[in-house]
Amino acid sequence: MISTSQKLLAEFFGTFWLVLGGCGSAVLAAAFPDLGIGFAGVALAFGLTVLTMAYAVGPVSGGHFNPAVSVGLWAAGRFPGSALPGYIISQVLGAIAGAAVLYFIASGKEGFSLDGGFAANGYGEHSPGKYGLSAAFLTEFVLTGFFLVIIIGATDKLAAPGFAGIAIGLALTLIHLISIPVTNTSVNPARSTSQALFAGSWALGQLWLFWVAPILGAAIAGVISKLLYPRAS
Amino acid sequence: MISTSQKLLAEFFGTFWLVLGGCGSAVLAAAFPDLGIGFAGVALAFGLTVLTMAYAVGPVSGGHFNPAVSVGLWAAGRFPGSALPGYIISQVLGAIAGAAVLYFIASGKEGFSLDGGFAANGYGEHSPGKYGLSAAFLTEFVLTGFFLVIIIGATDKLAAPGFAGIAIGLALTLIHLISIPVTNTSVNPARSTSQALFAGSWALGQLWLFWVAPILGAAIAGVISKLLYPRAS
Amino acid sequence: MISTSQKLLAEFFGTFWLVLGGCGSAVLAAAFPDLGIGFAGVALAFGLTVLTMAYAVGPVSGGHFNPAVSVGLWAAGRFPGSALPGYIISQVLGAIAGAAVLYFIASGKEGFSLDGGFAANGYGEHSPGKYGLSAAFLTEFVLTGFFLVIIIGATDKLAAPGFAGIAIGLALTLIHLISIPVTNTSVNPARSTSQALFAGSWALGQLWLFWVAPILGAAIAGVISKLLYPRAS
Amino acid sequence: MISTSQKLLAEFFGTFWLVLGGCGSAVLAAAFPDLGIGFAGVALAFGLTVLTMAYAVGPVSGGHFNPAVSVGLWAAGRFPGSALPGYIISQVLGAIAGAAVLYFIASGKEGFSLDGGFAANGYGEHSPGKYGLSAAFLTEFVLTGFFLVIIIGATDKLAAPGFAGIAIGLALTLIHLISIPVTNTSVNPARSTSQALFAGSWALGQLWLFWVAPILGAAIAGVISKLLYPRAS
Repeated sequence: MISTSQKLLAEFFGTFWLVLGGCGSAVLAAAFPDLGIGFAGVALAFGLTVLTMAYAVGPVSGGHFNPAVSVGLWAAGRFPGSALPGYIISQVLGAIAGAAVLYFIASGKEGFSLDGGFAANGYGEHSPGKYGLSAAFLTEFVLTGFFLVIIIGATDKLAAPGFAGIAIGLALTLIHLISIPVTNTSVNPARSTSQALFAGSWALGQLWLFWVAPILGAAIAGVISKLLYPRAS
Repeated sequence: MISTSQKLLAEFFGTFWLVLGGCGSAVLAAAFPDLGIGFAGVALAFGLTVLTMAYAVGPVSGGHFNPAVSVGLWAAGRFPGSALPGYIISQVLGAIAGAAVLYFIASGKEGFSLDGGFAANGYGEHSPGKYGLSAAFLTEFVLTGFFLVIIIGATDKLAAPGFAGIAIGLALTLIHLISIPVTNTSVNPARSTSQALFAGSWALGQLWLFWVAPILGAAIAGVISKLLYPRAS
Repeated sequence: MISTSQKLLAEFFGTFWLVLGGCGSAVLAAAFPDLGIGFAGVALAFGLTVLTMAYAVGPVSGGHFNPAVSVGLWAAGRFPGSALPGYIISQVLGAIAGAAVLYFIASGKEGFSLDGGFAANGYGEHSPGKYGLSAAFLTEFVLTGFFLVIIIGATDKLAAPGFAGIAIGLALTLIHLISIPVTNTSVNPARSTSQALFAGSWALGQLWLFWVAPILGAAIAGVISKLLYPRAS
Repeated sequence: MISTSQKLLAEFFGTFWLVLGGCGSAVLAAAFPDLGIGFAGVALAFGLTVLTMAYAVGPVSGGHFNPAVSVGLWAAGRFPGSALPGYIISQVLGAIAGAAVLYFIASGKEGFSLDGGFAANGYGEHSPGKYGLSAAFLTEFVLTGFFLVIIIGATDKLAAPGFAGIAIGLALTLIHLISIPVTNTSVNPARSTSQALFAGSWALGQLWLFWVAPILGAAIAGVISKLLYPRAS
């Protein structure tokens, strides 16, 4: 029997890893001179945080690591609403802890500055490619929606058992391959919150979008998935 | 029991995702200064659209997302001809919807122009590497043929269950690693059609090749696969 | 029941695909200006040719696509010596056919020249990084040996069923990530032969190494694997 | 029945492969002009050494290839303390043998010099990005800890069988995507030792950190995992 505190600990560790690994690769390795991993490497890193933790603690907590995922699964009838507050709080705290460790590591290099953005999400002048508000909103809305369709489908009773971690992790990689230039890619309000707390006022001022758009996309996808799949499971 | 409308909805969403993810990564992220994902990142993105949707909705519709795939499976005796029109229409509509969303996002950046090609397919002066018509035709013909051999083999009764989504998705990645310089890689008439509608007259004028060559390759591969595999399944 | 001609056809197609996909990505896409896939993309492509065909026709022929693999499996007691000639001939013919198609495509671009090497293997002045003969021999010997250890182990009765195609395909990717600078990476005499036939006299003169070293490494690995694994299967 | 010498041989070969493949890709291919694989390619190579050997010899020895992993599994109650010395000695000897082969190959190119670092790990002026001692220690400590959480979770009785090799191998890829700029990434004292022996005095002087931090992180993660997972297995 898995206890509630084990589930919350799993969500804490998983979201910690998502931020340390995904945002960490962006902050530490993406733009390293000549040999840096670029956006493709960051995309791979984000996806692998979820893939690895899905196999590590997925059986414990379900492996959400993302408030939008928890809300979308609730909308799909796959997750009890009563568990939402605990999951979301654990996710946000795990993300903040991951960001704190990353800050300690990143500041171990002379000349480090938070002015680089600390992998926070943004739109307009804070979008990596200077995409405006409505493009950013649509991007986060649609990509989180498809993320949920994949999560719900790959964990459906009809799906091949065991493969969900691969499909879901690599879906997050794909989402980053598309959209880092637009918003630096969130689809995860916890990850946006932790980085905004460090990056400062501009990021906190834009943080609303990275809660509203992903959660809205996830919730609508959760409802649509009831039409798409023969049965919820 | 899975209804026809669920199948068509699955094909619509899957092809939408293929275009938004594959063409989206090409339009938005491939050539981002210094950190862009390049052709390899685009190749990965196209493959992951199919991998993720194969696990998400493969059990619903079979996960074709491509008129050439549907025709090839029909030629192999794996898919009823009566279902072809519905599938192909859903795929083309899904592709167009995906391209429309991509257009909205891409135009959210100042200075965006369709003159960049919008990831449409082409040959001759519209081939990324200026490959001529016959090289382009052979490329699309052969690569779609092998794509079908892999699809048919990996979903055969003899194949290890569950792994088909990985093999098929990564086959599409491989195909793009080879051939983006030649035709910008189609092997999928729906994906070519949606982008041509936005890219304009040159792309519409060359669109015939990206219907004829992939479908011809797929159909021949479907027939050959009856020789190759001990039994159709 | 699978017939001998189905097995030989599977080996023909698989090795065709290995050459078209692996050497094709090298010739067509590796050095594309700014957006090219580089050695890492070529490494991924080679591995995915084997991964995809392992799932497609592995159950038909065993999925060797490589004379060194056939010899190594024979040395390990896993493959009948009487089947070696047929397999090796099919592999070499498939490789040549793949190279011919690649030649047709590559020459569809103005200014194409075989002086670029056509992805042939070489040492000394024909090594991409100018590595000498003994480094090249050791590289091909050791890497093919480990390739066989992985193939034999991942298809052993003790191994998790179904995963061998992933492990073996990605082993070939790994081998290329290490050794393209040394020999352009062979570990496969069929692939070396087909490219040497097109690349010309220097490549034919060095071809002996890419038969001797891989086959020697594979044979020794086949024998060692009898010690390593509790039982042959 | 698997004998102790088979287990030790498996650990020897696996760690040999980890060093030859991971450090080999770094030394030979990472910085190749224009086409080099960069940090992302090296990260992929390290992960694939573990993924491939996990499927090849994981059923023989458990597939540790890393003293920190052996210690962490012992701390988690998953591995007998009496087997630790034999495993660790085999791992270190395998790593040294792999480094010796790599040295022979690398020195087959005119102008090769160990001054390039031979992929040894370091901090301060020997960190690729000039990260200081405490950032390096925290990085190795935290990343090895999460590596163990993933290893223990993915091989738990609750986990989907067969997928552990993918999750664990790609976890090592992820760890390298994050931290090559900080310490050149160790999380494996055997890999650090073999490279330090060749790289010389500076690397031997910093070697203590790459034993202490990974093993400490692994041991603590082993203990924490008893809280996280419902049952040890």
